[in-house]
Amino acid sequence: MYKLTSRKYKSEDSIFEIAGRKIGGGDFAVIAGPCSVESEAQILSIAQSVKNAGAAFLRGGAFKARTSPYDFEGLGLDGLELLELARKRTGLPIVSEILSEAHLELFAECVDILQVGARNMQNFALLRRVGELGKPVLLKRGLSATIDELLLSAEHIMAGGAEQVILCERGIRTFEPATRNTLDLSAVPVIKNKSHLPVFVDPSHATGCADLVAPLALAAAACGADGLIIEVHDEPEAALCDGTQSLKPEAFAELMRRVERVREAARL
Amino acid sequence: MYKLTSRKYKSEDSIFEIAGRKIGGGDFAVIAGPCSVESEAQILSIAQSVKNAGAAFLRGGAFKARTSPYDFEGLGLDGLELLELARKRTGLPIVSEILSEAHLELFAECVDILQVGARNMQNFALLRRVGELGKPVLLKRGLSATIDELLLSAEHIMAGGAEQVILCERGIRTFEPATRNTLDLSAVPVIKNKSHLPVFVDPSHATGCADLVAPLALAAAACGADGLIIEVHDEPEAALCDGTQSLKPEAFAELMRRVERVREAARL
Amino acid sequence: MYKLTSRKYKSEDSIFEIAGRKIGGGDFAVIAGPCSVESEAQILSIAQSVKNAGAAFLRGGAFKARTSPYDFEGLGLDGLELLELARKRTGLPIVSEILSEAHLELFAECVDILQVGARNMQNFALLRRVGELGKPVLLKRGLSATIDELLLSAEHIMAGGAEQVILCERGIRTFEPATRNTLDLSAVPVIKNKSHLPVFVDPSHATGCADLVAPLALAAAACGADGLIIEVHDEPEAALCDGTQSLKPEAFAELMRRVERVREAARL
Amino acid sequence: MYKLTSRKYKSEDSIFEIAGRKIGGGDFAVIAGPCSVESEAQILSIAQSVKNAGAAFLRGGAFKARTSPYDFEGLGLDGLELLELARKRTGLPIVSEILSEAHLELFAECVDILQVGARNMQNFALLRRVGELGKPVLLKRGLSATIDELLLSAEHIMAGGAEQVILCERGIRTFEPATRNTLDLSAVPVIKNKSHLPVFVDPSHATGCADLVAPLALAAAACGADGLIIEVHDEPEAALCDGTQSLKPEAFAELMRRVERVREAARL
Repeated sequence: MYKLTSRKYKSEDSIFEIAGRKIGGGDFAVIAGPCSVESEAQILSIAQSVKNAGAAFLRGGAFKARTSPYDFEGLGLDGLELLELARKRTGLPIVSEILSEAHLELFAECVDILQVGARNMQNFALLRRVGELGKPVLLKRGLSATIDELLLSAEHIMAGGAEQVILCERGIRTFEPATRNTLDLSAVPVIKNKSHLPVFVDPSHATGCADLVAPLALAAAACGADGLIIEVHDEPEAALCDGTQSLKPEAFAELMRRVERVREAARL
Repeated sequence: MYKLTSRKYKSEDSIFEIAGRKIGGGDFAVIAGPCSVESEAQILSIAQSVKNAGAAFLRGGAFKARTSPYDFEGLGLDGLELLELARKRTGLPIVSEILSEAHLELFAECVDILQVGARNMQNFALLRRVGELGKPVLLKRGLSATIDELLLSAEHIMAGGAEQVILCERGIRTFEPATRNTLDLSAVPVIKNKSHLPVFVDPSHATGCADLVAPLALAAAACGADGLIIEVHDEPEAALCDGTQSLKPEAFAELMRRVERVREAARL
Repeated sequence: MYKLTSRKYKSEDSIFEIAGRKIGGGDFAVIAGPCSVESEAQILSIAQSVKNAGAAFLRGGAFKARTSPYDFEGLGLDGLELLELARKRTGLPIVSEILSEAHLELFAECVDILQVGARNMQNFALLRRVGELGKPVLLKRGLSATIDELLLSAEHIMAGGAEQVILCERGIRTFEPATRNTLDLSAVPVIKNKSHLPVFVDPSHATGCADLVAPLALAAAACGADGLIIEVHDEPEAALCDGTQSLKPEAFAELMRRVERVREAARL
Repeated sequence: MYKLTSRKYKSEDSIFEIAGRKIGGGDFAVIAGPCSVESEAQILSIAQSVKNAGAAFLRGGAFKARTSPYDFEGLGLDGLELLELARKRTGLPIVSEILSEAHLELFAECVDILQVGARNMQNFALLRRVGELGKPVLLKRGLSATIDELLLSAEHIMAGGAEQVILCERGIRTFEPATRNTLDLSAVPVIKNKSHLPVFVDPSHATGCADLVAPLALAAAACGADGLIIEVHDEPEAALCDGTQSLKPEAFAELMRRVERVREAARL
């Protein structure tokens, strides 16, 4: 069914080196930052905080996928420029979500890892074109995608030419209303059985609730994830988007220390 | 939350006239044809059959969204040309799915109704650009989309400028393995409460099984749907895609007669 | 997997005669009444109304399964006595839900069809004991039960000795919040393929909303159901339980007329 | 909505002492054993192994809930006697599932913790009667139960009189076929916010696959669970039930060591 993504095709874990950071094969990388880039002051301050705490990459939305056309859709091109500025100041490589085939060149230039979001996991035209860029891609699992479908979407990207594809579990839709989605941590070991690609976990979007981020981040580290994506905001209560799920920088720094301890303890 | 699509914004049912066919407001329209355009002989033969049986529109896939990159992806541009030929011969207007922003002009020229498939229901870049064309759109519900999200995606299209948006229930993902998806017929009256837009039902893709198409098509007609999308193939066993869910032309013709009887009986 | 319930074991449709009413094999039967028996005046008035409208059976809860221990749990034994009185006055046979193995003898005496509710669909001890009574049983599908599991639960009952088991689709759990559950009407033709047992549909509990009962009842009739369960209350706004999903007697009578027309129209 | 189970009713964590073992409040307890008691040799051997590895309780099914009436239903009374023998030999207290109100006295005598299984989570008659015994209860979450419904079912037990109720997350039903169910680890911190009761996790039943038990057991320990239920069998390939999800004794012993390390690392 899948070939390039399969563990049968490549038996050892894939290890990527992206902008000097290692991903996979026993290394653990954390991508952190705000849901949306809002201003120069905001992104520079958060970038510095998450760098100090040990994050390997800075994330920030410039173009935002919004369920309603009337919600804040991001700063767009200005947002990308602010991310570039943040990279220049802190040295952190950038992860940002691409929404449109029209932005391919722009993203190829500005970001280090192109994120394809859950809602575009089966936007096959975008997957193929993103793959053709040959840059690293972070592919999020769709809200009702099976693990096999996630791998087949990664296969579309790799068939386009890219080799560095990171998979990301970010919660699936169920009937349970206590969390925004249900984080499927079984996906981590299941994907590791089926594929050589690294697997990240995003507890912030999965739960939609800051209180739940730390326990689930620790759980992800314990069950073998290769990294995390964590939303961090210096003023969650004033965020333009998804504030209630963002950690403050201090809470993020504390979480980084606990994650490291758990990761070491969980090793065979 | 939604505006242009809302029943509060426009209290009476929307009625569209598309290529001389009426949709909504008590009229009932059936879109029929093969999953994929495969050859001139195939599409012309099926087009004539479904026309004779009373279908209002011809459907056929030229560019196919495929979960695996190694599956048949359609005839592409050649497929669109064959659809144009079928329209010329039979007079049936054409419905076909657009997958990429790169194909906007092509589809604007060749098809009468642009279909946005379930996997692109939240491809917001595509929704906006399709809306800007101003042509009729058939928007399918995503596999795990709520009804409110479907309406918000229609809102993206209408905010782009299009007025003629048809919504389509095509099954949602559940744990039940007996059908490919679970057809949510409650969506028909629920959408009619919330919105003035017409609602179609696709029992072929929902069930994935030809035997189940007729009973669920009748059920859709009974609960107030404005139309149906039915897969028809003259050799289901030899189809390049989704053969097991296709009706043969004679079974389709018989279904059309039963649907008409049920629709009349269900009227208040 | 299943034997006694299977279409392979018995190829023709099962037809039951219960208290002089026929169920299955082309006959259509409606079970109607309030969620809970509340008082003599209430049950006698509703019983007379639904009889006049053409219902074949009276339903009413005496012992109520309640998610919270602090909700109204029914009149219990008094409720059963009121149902017996209603049967005496109207001649309508009685359907009521049994919750406990401790009530087996009581129900064997007082009711014509024992209902096993969705929450007890896999209470195997109850299924077996209910089957041993040999009386007709109405078995509701569990909230997350597959169709095969429903048939296996019916198999438990039939393995106990009962022959007259009616299956009932009443909605399954999904992520869609617009309805209480998602009515899976595909289950009707799927079960008819797999089993010889009659299939009823309960649109009242599935949707939780009176406005949606009529369209989905018509849809159920159109796709081949053998009967319906409809909640009827003379004062839905004052009901002790589930009032918002109950039809008033006049709306129920009107629905009965429409259902009959649709059923005739849907016949091959 | 719920009272006795609520964190508002009792703000500090409940700590139970059951047969000399502490549960909750920072202690961590593992319940281990075979799916079914099969023979004296089998249960005594496994009991000794899991005791040596540090398990606090022995589990074993005497009466088995089986989807099909034709599957192995357990040794029944003989199984309970073998569990008593195993307790006598090893000192491990016993956890076993009760299926029927008819077995209340039997279980009150023979077992230390009565388990109510997922399929009986809303068998309210059983919940109430089990609660009236006043003995410790392990309540598993239903396959499609929300967290609030699980707490309300615990409320039924506590309203009956029991005080020592342990909640257990064991996977919910989703569309993902790679695991038997989807383990919802978010439930652990969510329940801890809402309730003072201890929360256990059962990765064996959730995943249905031995390879996935260890990573998810570690994840459960990392996110704050108070204990685990793990299936252990000395010959998984020959087990009469659920062999593919059972760990061998050596793998279980290794897991116990890793769980302990992770638990310590995850502490604040």
